[in-house]
Amino acid sequence: MRSREVRLERRPNGSPVRDDFSFAEVDLPDPGPGEVQVRNLYMAMDPAMRGRMSEARSYVPPFELGKAMEGPAVGEVVASNDPNFAPGDLVWSRLGWREGFTAPADKVEKRSRDLPPQAYLGFAGMTGLTAYVGLLHSAALKPGDTVFVSAASGGVGSVVCQIAKLKGHKVIGAAGGERKKRYLLDVLKLDGAIDYKAEPSLTKALAREAPQGIDVYFDNVGGDHLQAALAIANKYARFALCGMISQYNSTEPSAAPRNLTAAVTKELTLQGFIALNHLDKMDAFLADVRAWHAAGLLTSAETVYEGLDRSLEAFDGLFDGSGLGKMLVKIA
Amino acid sequence: MRSREVRLERRPNGSPVRDDFSFAEVDLPDPGPGEVQVRNLYMAMDPAMRGRMSEARSYVPPFELGKAMEGPAVGEVVASNDPNFAPGDLVWSRLGWREGFTAPADKVEKRSRDLPPQAYLGFAGMTGLTAYVGLLHSAALKPGDTVFVSAASGGVGSVVCQIAKLKGHKVIGAAGGERKKRYLLDVLKLDGAIDYKAEPSLTKALAREAPQGIDVYFDNVGGDHLQAALAIANKYARFALCGMISQYNSTEPSAAPRNLTAAVTKELTLQGFIALNHLDKMDAFLADVRAWHAAGLLTSAETVYEGLDRSLEAFDGLFDGSGLGKMLVKIA
Repeated sequence: MRSREVRLERRPNGSPVRDDFSFAEVDLPDPGPGEVQVRNLYMAMDPAMRGRMSEARSYVPPFELGKAMEGPAVGEVVASNDPNFAPGDLVWSRLGWREGFTAPADKVEKRSRDLPPQAYLGFAGMTGLTAYVGLLHSAALKPGDTVFVSAASGGVGSVVCQIAKLKGHKVIGAAGGERKKRYLLDVLKLDGAIDYKAEPSLTKALAREAPQGIDVYFDNVGGDHLQAALAIANKYARFALCGMISQYNSTEPSAAPRNLTAAVTKELTLQGFIALNHLDKMDAFLADVRAWHAAGLLTSAETVYEGLDRSLEAFDGLFDGSGLGKMLVKIA
Repeated sequence: MRSREVRLERRPNGSPVRDDFSFAEVDLPDPGPGEVQVRNLYMAMDPAMRGRMSEARSYVPPFELGKAMEGPAVGEVVASNDPNFAPGDLVWSRLGWREGFTAPADKVEKRSRDLPPQAYLGFAGMTGLTAYVGLLHSAALKPGDTVFVSAASGGVGSVVCQIAKLKGHKVIGAAGGERKKRYLLDVLKLDGAIDYKAEPSLTKALAREAPQGIDVYFDNVGGDHLQAALAIANKYARFALCGMISQYNSTEPSAAPRNLTAAVTKELTLQGFIALNHLDKMDAFLADVRAWHAAGLLTSAETVYEGLDRSLEAFDGLFDGSGLGKMLVKIA
């Protein structure tokens, strides 16, 4: 089997450009003992990939130059030399950015067919676990809480919103542009939505949408969104700090928030978290997610780009605000 | 009894100036039924007073203009019309900034004579409770933690340092000036001390003093100190956010810290707290503090100004860096 792949050729300075990457085609060897060969169906885009393109030390090592990048993917086993896998099995791996691969069987995990394949890249995958852990554990959501979510129409944000809504909470989402605002109100049925691009003051907009204040803030953005949340937070509010996408492409550090003293006077809890370190909650998460999906309470919010050739476009979509929900590439 | 008192005459803009205050003398009435008359011995200065001089909403209401300010004080009952108090009793109150007062008995609390009177304004008072709650509860100090304390020679900081040391921790303190640095090393016996005024980079200084990183940060300062702590924090470090004195006198918001994304990647917990809301821990705190004091492990770190006339000087001392330990005014 031949497989095309996307390689990182140099470390981006600020926003990645086309010449930072190359496309190559490789021959996949037949699987040796204990190996499987997989054809990828979907891969998912993840803001954390931007971090791995840089050399800076983070919680995962940087991508290697001249090699195919990595990222979550679901695929189908096409050939197996391992007793635990058979052709046709649906598998999850971190070997995205390529049409297929031959790898040791321990690099893939079997997934059941009771959910659509791409769900394992979204609400039933790390994206969903991130939403679940951040909202229910890091922010310790409790009855009566009003919830504010930034990047609410994004991959993680859209799952956070759905979980908070199905649990009966008042939810306010922020996203950029009228189309996303309509999506938050019409599709996700939020109680309030803020188009931050249309608001002269995010703090005033949040005060208007949440006149009773907010008790939980799920932060995907940092910067001015975090500043607005600090300003409008009620006493004892809990913030789950999931990511600060406003800063990933910055070549210089950002200045906001300027009102962190609110954390003292309101006795706030700001809890950073990385879902990868909460895999012990995976079983409870999957059980909840299957039940919510079966009950029609949780849907896949996604934007699909067709073909590996469009993968860089999908990646840009994470940052340029063009996509709704999880950004996926349909590879086959 | 006649009593001089210090009144707030107008709300300071930036650092308070002499004309923001006035001195007045009043006649204290004899105590009516259920009242006591008290002569203050000591009053304590507290950075939170600066907040109450402003109109901004906080966790306590602002001082009223034209009236004596308030703040922690210890005094001696001179006359009592309440069965629970007798002349000579040592009492704690919030009725500082005056030589004496006549007030309902429920405005004062009896204190035992087994500690020096001013201890109830320092390590055995709200200052001590703040250190205790922040270090042991908000930051959840645990064996093996390396502890970083900002404003380490101050009222709260010096108690935090002593508690962390007597529990066997490696403790790094930051303070401004060579005199305070010597105090941290020679008197409080810290493992490392940083004179932030002499360091071009607080982050580099902290990295040098804590090459193994820090696990707990007790923040009295915010701004660049918080930024250094974020940079040098180990994974899962816990920050107790107690106050951000660097910003209390600012007329415009401060920009730092610029590296809050570290809270995500290192899964930090930033916990704001106000000791007033942890009075349920008072009994355990006082039992521990008495035992530590009796064992010679906890001493009163204080700078004493003689006479109510010097109270504004003592208040300035909180911010101009002239004082070591708790800033006290000896009134009688």
